[in-house]
Amino acid sequence: MRLRMGMIGGGPGAFIGPIHRIAAELDREIELVAGVFSSDPDRSRAAAADYHIDPDRAYPDLDTMFAGEAARADGIDFVSIVSPNHHHLPAARAALTAGVAVMSDKPMTASLAEARALADLVATAGRPYALTYTYSGYPLVREARARIAAGAIGTVRKAVVEYSQGWLAGPAEGKQAEWRVDPARSGAGGCIGDIGVHAFQLAEFVTGLRVTRLLADLAAVVPGRALDDDCSVLLRFDNGARGVLLASQIEVGELNGLRIRVYGETGGLTWRQETPNDLTLHHIDGRTEIVRAGDASLGPDARARTRTPGGHPEGYLEAFANLYRDFAALLRGEVAPLLPDATEGLRGMAFIETAVTASRNEAGWVDLKL
Amino acid sequence: MRLRMGMIGGGPGAFIGPIHRIAAELDREIELVAGVFSSDPDRSRAAAADYHIDPDRAYPDLDTMFAGEAARADGIDFVSIVSPNHHHLPAARAALTAGVAVMSDKPMTASLAEARALADLVATAGRPYALTYTYSGYPLVREARARIAAGAIGTVRKAVVEYSQGWLAGPAEGKQAEWRVDPARSGAGGCIGDIGVHAFQLAEFVTGLRVTRLLADLAAVVPGRALDDDCSVLLRFDNGARGVLLASQIEVGELNGLRIRVYGETGGLTWRQETPNDLTLHHIDGRTEIVRAGDASLGPDARARTRTPGGHPEGYLEAFANLYRDFAALLRGEVAPLLPDATEGLRGMAFIETAVTASRNEAGWVDLKL
Amino acid sequence: MRLRMGMIGGGPGAFIGPIHRIAAELDREIELVAGVFSSDPDRSRAAAADYHIDPDRAYPDLDTMFAGEAARADGIDFVSIVSPNHHHLPAARAALTAGVAVMSDKPMTASLAEARALADLVATAGRPYALTYTYSGYPLVREARARIAAGAIGTVRKAVVEYSQGWLAGPAEGKQAEWRVDPARSGAGGCIGDIGVHAFQLAEFVTGLRVTRLLADLAAVVPGRALDDDCSVLLRFDNGARGVLLASQIEVGELNGLRIRVYGETGGLTWRQETPNDLTLHHIDGRTEIVRAGDASLGPDARARTRTPGGHPEGYLEAFANLYRDFAALLRGEVAPLLPDATEGLRGMAFIETAVTASRNEAGWVDLKL
Amino acid sequence: MRLRMGMIGGGPGAFIGPIHRIAAELDREIELVAGVFSSDPDRSRAAAADYHIDPDRAYPDLDTMFAGEAARADGIDFVSIVSPNHHHLPAARAALTAGVAVMSDKPMTASLAEARALADLVATAGRPYALTYTYSGYPLVREARARIAAGAIGTVRKAVVEYSQGWLAGPAEGKQAEWRVDPARSGAGGCIGDIGVHAFQLAEFVTGLRVTRLLADLAAVVPGRALDDDCSVLLRFDNGARGVLLASQIEVGELNGLRIRVYGETGGLTWRQETPNDLTLHHIDGRTEIVRAGDASLGPDARARTRTPGGHPEGYLEAFANLYRDFAALLRGEVAPLLPDATEGLRGMAFIETAVTASRNEAGWVDLKL
Repeated sequence: MRLRMGMIGGGPGAFIGPIHRIAAELDREIELVAGVFSSDPDRSRAAAADYHIDPDRAYPDLDTMFAGEAARADGIDFVSIVSPNHHHLPAARAALTAGVAVMSDKPMTASLAEARALADLVATAGRPYALTYTYSGYPLVREARARIAAGAIGTVRKAVVEYSQGWLAGPAEGKQAEWRVDPARSGAGGCIGDIGVHAFQLAEFVTGLRVTRLLADLAAVVPGRALDDDCSVLLRFDNGARGVLLASQIEVGELNGLRIRVYGETGGLTWRQETPNDLTLHHIDGRTEIVRAGDASLGPDARARTRTPGGHPEGYLEAFANLYRDFAALLRGEVAPLLPDATEGLRGMAFIETAVTASRNEAGWVDLKL
Repeated sequence: MRLRMGMIGGGPGAFIGPIHRIAAELDREIELVAGVFSSDPDRSRAAAADYHIDPDRAYPDLDTMFAGEAARADGIDFVSIVSPNHHHLPAARAALTAGVAVMSDKPMTASLAEARALADLVATAGRPYALTYTYSGYPLVREARARIAAGAIGTVRKAVVEYSQGWLAGPAEGKQAEWRVDPARSGAGGCIGDIGVHAFQLAEFVTGLRVTRLLADLAAVVPGRALDDDCSVLLRFDNGARGVLLASQIEVGELNGLRIRVYGETGGLTWRQETPNDLTLHHIDGRTEIVRAGDASLGPDARARTRTPGGHPEGYLEAFANLYRDFAALLRGEVAPLLPDATEGLRGMAFIETAVTASRNEAGWVDLKL
Repeated sequence: MRLRMGMIGGGPGAFIGPIHRIAAELDREIELVAGVFSSDPDRSRAAAADYHIDPDRAYPDLDTMFAGEAARADGIDFVSIVSPNHHHLPAARAALTAGVAVMSDKPMTASLAEARALADLVATAGRPYALTYTYSGYPLVREARARIAAGAIGTVRKAVVEYSQGWLAGPAEGKQAEWRVDPARSGAGGCIGDIGVHAFQLAEFVTGLRVTRLLADLAAVVPGRALDDDCSVLLRFDNGARGVLLASQIEVGELNGLRIRVYGETGGLTWRQETPNDLTLHHIDGRTEIVRAGDASLGPDARARTRTPGGHPEGYLEAFANLYRDFAALLRGEVAPLLPDATEGLRGMAFIETAVTASRNEAGWVDLKL
Repeated sequence: MRLRMGMIGGGPGAFIGPIHRIAAELDREIELVAGVFSSDPDRSRAAAADYHIDPDRAYPDLDTMFAGEAARADGIDFVSIVSPNHHHLPAARAALTAGVAVMSDKPMTASLAEARALADLVATAGRPYALTYTYSGYPLVREARARIAAGAIGTVRKAVVEYSQGWLAGPAEGKQAEWRVDPARSGAGGCIGDIGVHAFQLAEFVTGLRVTRLLADLAAVVPGRALDDDCSVLLRFDNGARGVLLASQIEVGELNGLRIRVYGETGGLTWRQETPNDLTLHHIDGRTEIVRAGDASLGPDARARTRTPGGHPEGYLEAFANLYRDFAALLRGEVAPLLPDATEGLRGMAFIETAVTASRNEAGWVDLKL
């Protein structure tokens, strides 16, 4: 029996809604059956038609959906929250209150205070809650984490993570851009909340370490922009390792240049999102290996998250689907230890707000507290 | 309303069946609802469970499926044929005879004679028939074709297409390998029929030209192998252009190295399957451009077959899904001019048999006739 | 008539001396004829033999060399200073005092105070003085600078320069490593003075801007090391542009990973030292160009510094030779506006000392003053 | 004492003469001191001035040079022959007859008959004779050969070598192009003699095998061209391995795309001239290694032919210089087993003429005989 998913957000013109739908359904363990796709009932119904779902299950608002679905024998098992950041908390709260599990787009909420409230709710709600930090779903990111955990590069000393985009180098135009540069919908972070937090989560995920301190230098480079669009952040991890996190949306020509390099006492490792199917591994003796999706040397976690033989590229949608696969396992009562949870979400929000505040105050090094 | 698909083949342990399922359903225009997944009824039912479909629609044989589905209001609209080559003709014939459209894996059949018979049947059957030459579904392959057609490199003079794999460098072990090296299931071609024909189709697809003559040198390099595993073929196209087609399955370390380079009077163009989201374009004045998925300069065909913004890699499954998208359009009565049809299928079979025969006879240059 | 070069340093086992010799002589405008290759006269003579130069011109000390050469009709025209940093000032002073021109390895001296003294001396000496900031000699670095100067990417907003090495990740062993980690020979900067200053110079050279402020975070990661081996520096340029400079010698597996990316209002540009013969250029309209050594579109400066046709890789030695070519031009009375001069040298020393001091004091943002 | 070199050819406007000069002198073991740079005495003297050599040693013809140099105590030790192909035999004969060693550009001569005559002369002359098959001088080509010889990929089964250029895609204009497309100066081979023979030599050099049979398909693609500009050649090696050799000068946008891939029973190996400082090595167990110039794992031959630490790119000139280093060793009485000798030269000429003749006659597979 497939798990039944409701969607919140993802109406006509949305980018991330259809991505979530594809990702959720890719392995056929989940089926999109209902949704509040828009706060405009007509647009919600139009989206339902686009998704080929029953028009009766295109709801005008959250309450109606949770009530309607609760009344059905085949009601939704969970919701996927894909609306802008300021909707994340009310949507998640409504779902959890209704006893419905939540898979939320990142960041967790629009502010750290909201995130704390949501984390408290999750702790008591008794229903699964997870976040789609997509990049942690890539098989070779899983492999990178597993190799570092197994000591392939020794004690981590340094991590450099960059997330480079150029699409906001000019005026922010179009549905996708507009809400991201609007504090009312995006929260206090611009670039730092949109992509910087992905880089932060990836750095913690791959190294297995926690950031404890940071020094942030954020700016709105494009004239007239209210939120940051270019971020340089220095990091310290809990084992003393040093880190650099760069995120920018004004680097003309860069598409989705997320890259991470981690160096330890005895090795180094590099992964790039735009060529996600291999991993470069350096050994202290001078050897360089390319680990490729499909290789016999891959660990069980990476192997289980690859659907095709080596050389048949898998990409963003498949990485995304890996998170939904983990989420489905969670709903079936299995464990999914690498799926980003509320604590990860809270850490992300703490990162965003700490960086924004520290940069504004030119505070130098500050602690990262939840 | 989603189109309903039945599957022939794709039972437990199959590689390509689940790929077809994902590809078919990716855009939610098609739904897998039935199948003869194996000639063993128990295995067929086991596969149905894996696919999460109704066990009543896991049929033991073709006749039962077509009869059973015809009796339902929600019966299948088409079948996807994913079994080994020697099943392609009987499966397609049964479907077309039952008035059911066919999406077939390549190559069309196990022999040229069979392909001719099937092409004749398709011509009179009045139902859509298409083939999943996957690589022609990549957005940047579509772009390459469109740019060449628009004159971006001038009259084509030369095409080099290579398909390099290494997985059969040792003894052929495992389900995927075994049938491919067995003439009874694979047909007369080994490597040439498994991957060489993909390279052939890609060369014709991208250049917009037709191969008229060829010189083939095929060999079974691995001791004891009955079918070819390494192929060098020289080509002539109908405009006089020269071509080289290399395909091998004994090139240790190569995964799925399909690459095409096309040169014209005023430019050149390169695409590689393992990094499918960009295209290199050379101009006679010395300029080199990288055309990337998501770029504003992409033509409508490539653009319509991309689901994510630039920098979010799409891969093999998405390319595959693009063929099913075209096929769904065809079933809805639209045109899908680039979807490989029976003529493409027949050309592929003619290529395989001509190459095998010419090589065996050391015939030098021979004509490619359908 | 070839210009005659004396060398200071570069004795047996030296890395950079032979490099200077090759670079200086590559275009046959310069000939190595004399030297104080070591402070040990025997070693100095041994080096002379290795270099195939007249043993009579292997001098035991600076005074003897300048006196001896002054007495010859065919005496040296200039010296190349290739000894460790703490020798740079005395060697340059001796040469300039003797009326001999100076080509010095970088950094200029072992301290900013020394650099100021030397800059003053250069200003009055009336003989050419230049520094081998090697990377500014690469043809495509010249091209990058020229294109940015010509407006190819609009007003510069952001520069990211990284210099990544791993050879000092373990204990510093061997002649090359030992002096670099010793404050007495290297000066106050370790990694920042060895490679960080190259990155600094490259960033200013390519952008055509000047760094006015910086925030530095330097550390000695390897236990027991006296000087920094890992550096993160945030920059501000005189036009308000933001910069990031990363330099490290503990990134295991990295060889000589100097990379620069510059983004402006209308474009972006990337160059990597390890693949130095091309340049990636992004345009705001989404086009990406690869500019290659040998391309017809190259400007005169890059073109004049390329010795082979496109596709015949030139590398580090040829880049180095380009600086000597410029220096030879200077000695012949021509102008060599892009050759790093005493002002560049002084800026580099100011960068090193400012970064070291600011980091030690956790001073946050500080001005860069000469 | 440096060895003294005379040059034959390399006058004003020449491409390859200055390259030979740089390569010969790079390690300071050789010095250019004399030459017949042109058959026009004025041009010969002008070249001498460009090279900064004594005008008295710019000779008007071969006889004068050999007589003049023989009369000097510091006369030339060898000549470097860098003139077009039809000069190679007379120049080499004059030198050897005068007891002067010869370093010749490739191909050996303008015809196989000439090559046989020269090989006979070399056999009896008692002076060293070698050829500058440049690409065999690259450190990582040496490493590839050494690894294959040591069994790193097992018995060789397949080699694919490609040499792709585009500079003759249009009309052949300019000094470099004109003689290459003229049978009177170039010999019977166009592209096959200019670059195909490099690919041939590289394939034999790296595999350590000998080609015994070939099937050639050569064409003059550009209208009006007398000599081939596009070549496809199938090969068989003496151990039964299969080969493919592609060479073209009409592939628009390709600069100097020489690439070789070799596959054995247990591994595979790839090298590309345009990024010459690394080598990809595949193992049958799925591991992929990148071997880089400067790595500790390099064998003695590659290591001895690298002048800079890893990450400091060396290129074409340095590879060229490695051949002169070997030649200098030979002149000093050492052995230089990998330096291409008269037998290599003869094999190259046999390859060219066999391919040209077999293609013209559409002869299919033919033996390669010296």
